[in-house]
Amino acid sequence: MATNELFQYSVVSALMDGVASNGLPVSTLLNNGDLGLGTFRSMSGEMIVFDGLVYQMKHDGTVRRVDPDEEVTPFAMVTHFAPTTTLDAALSSKDAVVDLLGKLFPDANNLYIAVRLDGVFRSVTVRTAEGQRFPGESLRAVGSRQVTHTFDGGVRGTLVGFRSPAFLQGVSVAGIHLHFIEEGRTRGGHVLDLETEGEVRLGAAVLSRVVLELPRGDDQFNVAKLKTDAAGIHAIEG
Amino acid sequence: MATNELFQYSVVSALMDGVASNGLPVSTLLNNGDLGLGTFRSMSGEMIVFDGLVYQMKHDGTVRRVDPDEEVTPFAMVTHFAPTTTLDAALSSKDAVVDLLGKLFPDANNLYIAVRLDGVFRSVTVRTAEGQRFPGESLRAVGSRQVTHTFDGGVRGTLVGFRSPAFLQGVSVAGIHLHFIEEGRTRGGHVLDLETEGEVRLGAAVLSRVVLELPRGDDQFNVAKLKTDAAGIHAIEG
Repeated sequence: MATNELFQYSVVSALMDGVASNGLPVSTLLNNGDLGLGTFRSMSGEMIVFDGLVYQMKHDGTVRRVDPDEEVTPFAMVTHFAPTTTLDAALSSKDAVVDLLGKLFPDANNLYIAVRLDGVFRSVTVRTAEGQRFPGESLRAVGSRQVTHTFDGGVRGTLVGFRSPAFLQGVSVAGIHLHFIEEGRTRGGHVLDLETEGEVRLGAAVLSRVVLELPRGDDQFNVAKLKTDAAGIHAIEG
Repeated sequence: MATNELFQYSVVSALMDGVASNGLPVSTLLNNGDLGLGTFRSMSGEMIVFDGLVYQMKHDGTVRRVDPDEEVTPFAMVTHFAPTTTLDAALSSKDAVVDLLGKLFPDANNLYIAVRLDGVFRSVTVRTAEGQRFPGESLRAVGSRQVTHTFDGGVRGTLVGFRSPAFLQGVSVAGIHLHFIEEGRTRGGHVLDLETEGEVRLGAAVLSRVVLELPRGDDQFNVAKLKTDAAGIHAIEG
């Protein structure tokens, strides 16, 4: 994989269908990129990847550094990130990130954008998934038990994610999808909203070449219906 | 690209929206695979690729060998084909090809299959697209002017194509998609139906790793809506 190519394992529709018992070794994932996000076996918590390190942010509020040889991922997106645009920006919301990316990359309406934000945030609201209670439980059911946290009062940390094109809803999560981890690596999750404290550092790059690896030899994936549930994905991942 | 990986340039939804004024050089396409199908600038005719050679099968019934340095493709799918299964089969219809592939590869419901058939056919019915009459004309409109030919009486030739997973409708053409060329390389097109004369040679392989290259720096693609029109795709490409 060259820089700024997207590597994705499996598709979001498979998570919606509860396909999460198996997955790609995280060590293999890291061969394909050093920045990104995803989840773990049984959807147990949120994955964030940057600088080649992987963290698992769990439902009980704990965060741990992941040994790439010990975990697998049923869904993840990564890139060898080489930002083509970097700037300082004050952002009042998650929507403001979307607006800014649209202005920075007007030729990328139907392409992916990888983004990283570093700095101090007035508030970041995240959720973390508890994980499946039984094999095959749908992401919608898992998401109904999600726990939401708001970190405020000036939290320093890193956000990582992608803006995916609308026409690939079901493959990826259409629109913006960001995960956050606090500087001390003790708090984080899937970002629901954010507000920066002054300006944060933004790096971004357009990705137009996508390597999609579909699960092979995975009975759960083989029998999954994989109907695109746009409303369901928006409810859980939006 | 390793063997039996799928390389695809652009998406079928873009053709539906009429995005066909630009494209990938055919020479670049061939770097990514030696067997496959697609179309040409302005959707002028059907592309078939095998043994590393590229043919254009035009609406007026002519077929020509394409110089890879002189043409571009707005949509194509290729693989470095290394069949994992080869056998002789009598096939009464296009649906029979689908049924056989499903039996040969029961673990590939949600994966791609590349297929090549060589032999004598009692009949092959094809269509060829005339191409766009103006830039941006939709595939549906182009398809409404398609010309259908039935070759019968024992025509020897080669069929090449893919069975794509249902959940990737709009990216690829869900289900089976085959192009045919007659042994003399003077007739061919997009296959609507077929019947073999006795047995033909079938080679096939499952593809689970997909490299999707999206058009970059292409204003037509950038402003396209890319709504998945399953009924439209089925009508034109089914």
